[in-house]
Amino acid sequence: MIFSNTEFYYTPKEFISGNTIIIAEDEAKHIVKVMRHSINDEIFVTNGEGIVYRAIIENITKREIVAAVKEKFLLANKTENLTFCIPILKSADRFEFALEKSVELGITNFLIFNAKKSYKRGVKIERWERILLSAMKQSLQSFKPKIEFTNSLKTSLANKSNIIVFEQNAGVTLKSYLENKSKIEAITEKETYFIFGPEGGLTEEELNIKNGIKLKLTDNRLRAETAVITVGSFLSLVK
Amino acid sequence: MIFSNTEFYYTPKEFISGNTIIIAEDEAKHIVKVMRHSINDEIFVTNGEGIVYRAIIENITKREIVAAVKEKFLLANKTENLTFCIPILKSADRFEFALEKSVELGITNFLIFNAKKSYKRGVKIERWERILLSAMKQSLQSFKPKIEFTNSLKTSLANKSNIIVFEQNAGVTLKSYLENKSKIEAITEKETYFIFGPEGGLTEEELNIKNGIKLKLTDNRLRAETAVITVGSFLSLVK
Repeated sequence: MIFSNTEFYYTPKEFISGNTIIIAEDEAKHIVKVMRHSINDEIFVTNGEGIVYRAIIENITKREIVAAVKEKFLLANKTENLTFCIPILKSADRFEFALEKSVELGITNFLIFNAKKSYKRGVKIERWERILLSAMKQSLQSFKPKIEFTNSLKTSLANKSNIIVFEQNAGVTLKSYLENKSKIEAITEKETYFIFGPEGGLTEEELNIKNGIKLKLTDNRLRAETAVITVGSFLSLVK
Repeated sequence: MIFSNTEFYYTPKEFISGNTIIIAEDEAKHIVKVMRHSINDEIFVTNGEGIVYRAIIENITKREIVAAVKEKFLLANKTENLTFCIPILKSADRFEFALEKSVELGITNFLIFNAKKSYKRGVKIERWERILLSAMKQSLQSFKPKIEFTNSLKTSLANKSNIIVFEQNAGVTLKSYLENKSKIEAITEKETYFIFGPEGGLTEEELNIKNGIKLKLTDNRLRAETAVITVGSFLSLVK
């Protein structure tokens, strides 16, 4: 509540020592040049690991900002057990939109993969990390999203037991699956992986991943990025 | 199910007479030039009012396609009682994304308004209609979305009794509001208007619209378009 009209900034925990916060490089530039903050202004800074600091800017140099902590808030990550497995999409815009929206809705773990029918685009981890971090700050959250890439989702998930694969033609809907309360708890409390398909869909082999449950979202055909956002929305409302 | 690997095309009901369907202009061009259909191909055509026709192309001229109906399906509009009231956003991309996603998720009525804090952009009804129609076809739906613009939401909704306003600082969440089953039924069965805010938020006066109930979506701050998509997702899952 206290945050709703403010901005969050991020600095790694290594830059926070006692009551002193140092914000460096681009983030410092953004605070001074774009947001026009100056000495004695109050700012909110997160370490990306659940802590938010209310701090006062004490010094601004060319390279960094030094701020003094006035108050500390500890926030909870309600979705740390969940991972969204998203294929690289043909449209980079739509792919990045899916990432941004997922973070806004509270998802913090991403496993990006090349599906058989993905249009093999470049793996741009650094760019994706910037998008995720920006969405985290924008939505006033304090857990820095983690993103990894795998060339083989099958190998990466070989030892996982709780996997949900979204598939337009599945017989069971997410909604009916979750009418069983213990299933909701399993999804929201156990380590769970959600697999989405690319524009062209997943192959039979991909759909039949070991320990996977196939569920359908809606009767309408959803675009790849819409399926991701829909599940994110749903989780943000049930958690 | 039968539709999941196909394309939908649209032609107004005036162009359908008995078992003959005429598809004209851009849609006809798209079918021939982009989708490379030719005589004797099977296509699915909707009249935008809930009927889908399986038809065979019988003739192609420079101006139109003539197709013969083989089968007719009648689909239901599960959200005809719901209207999304969306303000013009600063970012046209994000605004159009909200429209596209809402349609994919099944919403068919839109009332666009200039909020006090909207960045008065142009009212592009024709462009928005194209986006909505395209999303309808893409997601294999058969109700042509309706979109209107109003300069005064207050006047447009003066006689409406079921209004939900989404507001970050509201005390009650959509989730807790809907734990009462009769409230879900009211939303899904009665004529209901959902009001979303622009980037800068709604004013006090806008928030306190007559007969409006203020609800909050999530603890995270959601971007304007994300709030729209989140409610669309939620409705697609509860209906």
